[in-house]
Amino acid sequence: MSDRDILKELKSMSYKEMTALSREIREKIIDTVSQNGGHLSSNLGMVEATIALHKVFDSPNDKLIFDVGHQCYAHKIITGRDDEFSTLRTYGGISGFPNRQESEHDILNEGHSGTSISAALGIAEANKLMGKTDYTVAIIGDGSLTNGMVYEALNNCADKDLRLIILVNDNEMSISKNVGGLHNYFSKVRVSKRYFIFKRRLIKGFRWIPLLGKPLTKLSAYIKNVIRRAVVKDNLFEDLGLEYLGPVDGNNIKKVVGVLEEAKTRNGCTVVHIRTKKGYGYEHAENEPGKYHGVGKFDKENGTSSLESECFSTYVGKRLTEMADKDEKICAITAAMCDGTGLTPFYDKHPTRFYDVGIAEEHAVTFASGLSVSGMKPVVALYSTFSQRTYDQMFHDIAIQKLPMTLLLDRCGLVGGDGITHQGIFDYPLFSSIPNAYIYSPESYDELGTCLERAIGDENFDIIRYPKGKENKYDLMFEMINDESDLFAYSSNVNTAKRVIIAYGRISRLAFEVASALGDCAVIKLIRIFPLNIEKISALLNGKELCYVLEESYKTGGVGEKLYPAFKNVQNVYIHAIEGFVEHGELDNLYKALGFDKEAIVDRIKEIC
Amino acid sequence: MSDRDILKELKSMSYKEMTALSREIREKIIDTVSQNGGHLSSNLGMVEATIALHKVFDSPNDKLIFDVGHQCYAHKIITGRDDEFSTLRTYGGISGFPNRQESEHDILNEGHSGTSISAALGIAEANKLMGKTDYTVAIIGDGSLTNGMVYEALNNCADKDLRLIILVNDNEMSISKNVGGLHNYFSKVRVSKRYFIFKRRLIKGFRWIPLLGKPLTKLSAYIKNVIRRAVVKDNLFEDLGLEYLGPVDGNNIKKVVGVLEEAKTRNGCTVVHIRTKKGYGYEHAENEPGKYHGVGKFDKENGTSSLESECFSTYVGKRLTEMADKDEKICAITAAMCDGTGLTPFYDKHPTRFYDVGIAEEHAVTFASGLSVSGMKPVVALYSTFSQRTYDQMFHDIAIQKLPMTLLLDRCGLVGGDGITHQGIFDYPLFSSIPNAYIYSPESYDELGTCLERAIGDENFDIIRYPKGKENKYDLMFEMINDESDLFAYSSNVNTAKRVIIAYGRISRLAFEVASALGDCAVIKLIRIFPLNIEKISALLNGKELCYVLEESYKTGGVGEKLYPAFKNVQNVYIHAIEGFVEHGELDNLYKALGFDKEAIVDRIKEIC
Repeated sequence: MSDRDILKELKSMSYKEMTALSREIREKIIDTVSQNGGHLSSNLGMVEATIALHKVFDSPNDKLIFDVGHQCYAHKIITGRDDEFSTLRTYGGISGFPNRQESEHDILNEGHSGTSISAALGIAEANKLMGKTDYTVAIIGDGSLTNGMVYEALNNCADKDLRLIILVNDNEMSISKNVGGLHNYFSKVRVSKRYFIFKRRLIKGFRWIPLLGKPLTKLSAYIKNVIRRAVVKDNLFEDLGLEYLGPVDGNNIKKVVGVLEEAKTRNGCTVVHIRTKKGYGYEHAENEPGKYHGVGKFDKENGTSSLESECFSTYVGKRLTEMADKDEKICAITAAMCDGTGLTPFYDKHPTRFYDVGIAEEHAVTFASGLSVSGMKPVVALYSTFSQRTYDQMFHDIAIQKLPMTLLLDRCGLVGGDGITHQGIFDYPLFSSIPNAYIYSPESYDELGTCLERAIGDENFDIIRYPKGKENKYDLMFEMINDESDLFAYSSNVNTAKRVIIAYGRISRLAFEVASALGDCAVIKLIRIFPLNIEKISALLNGKELCYVLEESYKTGGVGEKLYPAFKNVQNVYIHAIEGFVEHGELDNLYKALGFDKEAIVDRIKEIC
Repeated sequence: MSDRDILKELKSMSYKEMTALSREIREKIIDTVSQNGGHLSSNLGMVEATIALHKVFDSPNDKLIFDVGHQCYAHKIITGRDDEFSTLRTYGGISGFPNRQESEHDILNEGHSGTSISAALGIAEANKLMGKTDYTVAIIGDGSLTNGMVYEALNNCADKDLRLIILVNDNEMSISKNVGGLHNYFSKVRVSKRYFIFKRRLIKGFRWIPLLGKPLTKLSAYIKNVIRRAVVKDNLFEDLGLEYLGPVDGNNIKKVVGVLEEAKTRNGCTVVHIRTKKGYGYEHAENEPGKYHGVGKFDKENGTSSLESECFSTYVGKRLTEMADKDEKICAITAAMCDGTGLTPFYDKHPTRFYDVGIAEEHAVTFASGLSVSGMKPVVALYSTFSQRTYDQMFHDIAIQKLPMTLLLDRCGLVGGDGITHQGIFDYPLFSSIPNAYIYSPESYDELGTCLERAIGDENFDIIRYPKGKENKYDLMFEMINDESDLFAYSSNVNTAKRVIIAYGRISRLAFEVASALGDCAVIKLIRIFPLNIEKISALLNGKELCYVLEESYKTGGVGEKLYPAFKNVQNVYIHAIEGFVEHGELDNLYKALGFDKEAIVDRIKEIC
């Protein structure tokens, strides 16, 4: 497909040619993801629908907004990025999510769930204000429909004279599994094709009677209502005043083209409901779509990947399950990330105390506050980046109430391939500005266990953050301070060395390597990173020539900034943290680009003193 | 009503006696709010329903969770706080919102919208796990139903064996007006009593046939469905798998008692829909419920209050409207706070560019990102405390995209009577941790105008924060630095004085008074408070004996903390900011309690140097 303008070719393709194109694209996706890792199942499911979208709409004049962005690979290949597609998710290569900087066809960077309809509504409104007739299409999976923002947006789409189409990609599952009433609702709608067919025929029928226009409109509306009541189903979208078309087979290009063409003829905001098969066209992914949702490198032929071994997520899941064996009050809550956060063993062992609330992080936290006020011990497990949605709930429903809760933050620090919208480097500035919060950043499983015991055991609002992947293993030479008021460690030369590096979490290892290379340099490794014990740290730093703070986290509002009062009697201070957004790439490359590099740091320190 | 145990008496009262009680309570609410200010309309509307709740449920074993808390006054009077009710919203008096510290009948502190169902679900789940048979009731207004969290929670209520009742108080308006599809949906449901009556009779009918139990259950469900389809209306709640009862007249104690008793007999989560009249029983509030939603002191007899004169909100509304007269790209967005944020003139003048999205702050910001990416100039106006809901949207949908947007933060700093859940003192730590954000904190209307011109004119993500109420007026003696890179002012003695106070926003006036009292003391007033120009400030502070930072904002992550690198050559540093949550009270009292007091600060500074 190299150097072809697929988008242009597509416009004149027959359905047969488009089907051939879908096979090419699918092959390319499987090839690339098996090499680079990425999101497979959802992308495979959306190949046909994406071809149909580009057949019917005129991107980038018409704007396609992909919710979350788990399903944009075919779109990238079609819109001029087929040659570069092999660089997917690599440093300097193309992003695994829609990315504004990459192409005029990527309208917004995406990565967090439930934003597409709000953004698309804004674009459609702007078009209306400017007198443009372009269409805006939000493409959203049924999993994202569990997110509250979607509902806020849908509630604002009604009664508007907009060229706005919402394509609901119903693949019968979100990332883990679909939960709750909405899921049951969809199950009902899926079996109700009769209504759709009947309604379309009726409306078409009326359209061919030219002279009776207006009176029949009213009659038609009445009859539509009667039919709906009689034949089918309440329709959530129609309740909210939106036009609704579907469901149709989303893996059939012709059918999707048909329903999208129909949607273009409607006034106002139209919901188009398609059904796709997650992992479509790749047997292994069809059979285990959850496993192939987000994957690392795997063997294309037999679908096998290097066996997932122990990591922070699995460790925490195992430990928490064991603790829950002995303590009936422990409950676990996840927002559609049961596997990702390692909680599957908890679910298997204690299903009545396990809650997957859907992609509904806000609800997860306030729900936990209800459990907590009743004397349970809720543990909420979220990815760092998605936890950003919950600041106000942690503030209002946990911290103000002085309720004990444990928040497990997975994927803290740099996450690699997922890139700018997913880096877990903002949680510390965010949550350290909530009164009464305690934040821990263990580097090893042992430390994580210590933090977890402490968090479950005390009456505080405790946050434990840890990175994706495995623990660090290295010679410690640390003394651990673990008492009521504190949790940190320092190397045994802390009193004699003239230079000190302060670090926490995964990057502590680099601090230790730098200190070893330098010689006359100690390391203080913080484990509880908020609140900080300024007095103790100040005493350890007293009279030092240099304090170098190393943070795999955002600089503003970070640990270094908060440590300043402890630097009063230190000659030189250097805060080495992350100063802005970080794009995707392999962890090693990102570390290097950010200066998290032994040689570079050693040189810098030598230059200072 | 002094010293009576109304809750106990209520249990044995006749309906006639309860009606008399409702009159007493209503009178007390009007008396107190006319003196102390507070939320009037919603509280008056809920008097009868609250009496019914306490008649039917056994608080505090059964738990009543009031969403937002705008409607808890009758609950407070009934549950042992009738004597103290005259201290409502005053310093050391009782809170205007449910408050855990105040009474065992207040289960959680409330103040932000849409949290009640999530919290109630958590409590109900905990009861189930612990084998308790107590009921949990979430009391929520139709306005709050525009909030996305509610929907996330409802989606998790289905198919559960819980003793959970959701009382929807439908008073046909949220704080400003109800918006969107949901509103239209409710209008439909309101006229559909037929269905409810028919359904209840049918079910009752079946219940009296003792021997046919099980087979009839199925038949009954089938017939219910047929009836629903034929007679009425799609029901949003039933779509989500919940039981639904209503609507009934919520100002009729007997009817509410009836429907709540019915709800207690249902399995699982039951939605009870009542209709109340906002402002019920007080003519002025019935006629203008919006005006009496949140009020200051007013004349009880004729309803008049001291005329609302110019304040930051009205100034910003006026200025923005004028700017929009000349610039067609300016759009204004509010989340159910059109009056409160001063945007009414904008709505009147430019209705097509004005958007009230409901209590949906998250959607407001992402919607603005859609407008912005299309070349419009969106201005989102939120209260500081509610803006906490939007961190992730500002991060993901504005900052990552590098999109220009203006965020107006009203009610920044201490807000007085509304108390702990409403203080606007956390926005700075929060939003300064978003890359690419610019934050301004004007003290006067002129400064606000300057910030607004700058924000609309540039391509940045600009946040302008200002307090509730009026500007400060005092002799300036300031030199203003207003260039591309900066915006701040300093008193003319900044080079000669040995002490410097740094302040921003409303509290700058106190800094100036302290400096005047001290003599040898200068003031630096920051207007752009993020990013800070460390270099310039450092130069101004070089060699000073003292730098005293005064902040009407949370200390952790605050301006003082961020200024530390500028204190390198300052002998003494003192950061005077707010160190935790702040309860309700008159502003003067709160200031005093926090040490924001001229004499206290003068004494402290004299002590230091």
